[in-house]
Amino acid sequence: MATSNVKVLGAWPSPFVNRVRMALKVKSVDYELIETNPHEKTELLIKSNPVHKKIPVLFHGDKRICESLIIVQYIDEVWTDGPSILPSDPYDRAIARFWAAYIDDKWFPLFQLLRDAQGEERKAVVEKISGGLLLLEGAFVDCSKGKAFFGGDNVGYLDIALAGCVGWMRASDILLGAKFLDETKTPHLVGWVGKLYSDSSVKDLMPDPHILIELYKKFQAMSEAASE
Amino acid sequence: MATSNVKVLGAWPSPFVNRVRMALKVKSVDYELIETNPHEKTELLIKSNPVHKKIPVLFHGDKRICESLIIVQYIDEVWTDGPSILPSDPYDRAIARFWAAYIDDKWFPLFQLLRDAQGEERKAVVEKISGGLLLLEGAFVDCSKGKAFFGGDNVGYLDIALAGCVGWMRASDILLGAKFLDETKTPHLVGWVGKLYSDSSVKDLMPDPHILIELYKKFQAMSEAASE
Repeated sequence: MATSNVKVLGAWPSPFVNRVRMALKVKSVDYELIETNPHEKTELLIKSNPVHKKIPVLFHGDKRICESLIIVQYIDEVWTDGPSILPSDPYDRAIARFWAAYIDDKWFPLFQLLRDAQGEERKAVVEKISGGLLLLEGAFVDCSKGKAFFGGDNVGYLDIALAGCVGWMRASDILLGAKFLDETKTPHLVGWVGKLYSDSSVKDLMPDPHILIELYKKFQAMSEAASE
Repeated sequence: MATSNVKVLGAWPSPFVNRVRMALKVKSVDYELIETNPHEKTELLIKSNPVHKKIPVLFHGDKRICESLIIVQYIDEVWTDGPSILPSDPYDRAIARFWAAYIDDKWFPLFQLLRDAQGEERKAVVEKISGGLLLLEGAFVDCSKGKAFFGGDNVGYLDIALAGCVGWMRASDILLGAKFLDETKTPHLVGWVGKLYSDSSVKDLMPDPHILIELYKKFQAMSEAASE
């Protein structure tokens, strides 16, 4: 493994932190994870990301970079010896960026709504998430060109953008029985998730959804105790 | 001017469309503007950008690309003969991307809130916008390194990202007397705006705020008449 003066301020269950760790893994860059409580605005976090006060933050020597997708692009542009993360063709890059932005701006925020929604409202959110997955299924067919990943033969930018969210999606699926990953509606995504959990470059970073569920329940219980 | 099979689906007052036109101007790429009503979801728009149904859309031969900042990066990567839009250094690129995302995700959406807010609420939004401008003033000092633009000697990515919003910011300033651009608080941004309106690469695309105000009033009157 290449060594470098690289640290990641983050927390292992965070889908956004996981993106950064996946990108570093793809590039075989060694790093230190500075574990922080994702629900706490520590002094280091506020100092490192004063605008958003959010993890992840990448420290590279005396530089610090924020926002997970921006960090992933930075990693791709700095460690050029490793496999490319962004596609080489400008149009393919634009399409990968388009879907990654869709995930962050439109699709993944629905899971936050899902957490708080009940009854009919929850049903509507589940439908929106499933509708988004149909779009991403189409994106997979377009981007993968018959290969295993969005990025082709290897894990690429859009794989990393979506893979970070997969653990929490599976956890929500198990908790609600929502059938987000459906063999008949999104067969390519189902196959893709299977490949993520066996691919040498990212499998160690794909969280077990049952552990995420335990963590979620623990956090819920703590929140309820605090509000009593 | 280099000629190419390039069309932009958009509307001249749109800050997001203006970003694309500025990038094409910087690269000296000739194009056709397909003017569309920004408040109407035309068949062409729905077909060209089925996910967001928003302008701008760039057509380049048989390719179509959506989302203004993604289009600007595409233009930079395709027309490599022209001046670079993104900085060449990966860290500088990350910083430019960070602030461009801040503008789109946090700062510019405040103007939509401003439009509908009244009284104390409006005052709070004005303060948030001004607070954001202080951050962007700091970003200018860091990125410009003593030169005229965020991008240095020439208009770059972050210049284009923010310049697209300047016309509407000035229009809001005049309508509300908010003093968004303040010589004492944001002297670098005040100087930068002056340079945009005289720079050969973008000045023709910097809208007169008074014309935007007329347009805004006309649209307001139409909305009110429609709701009566």
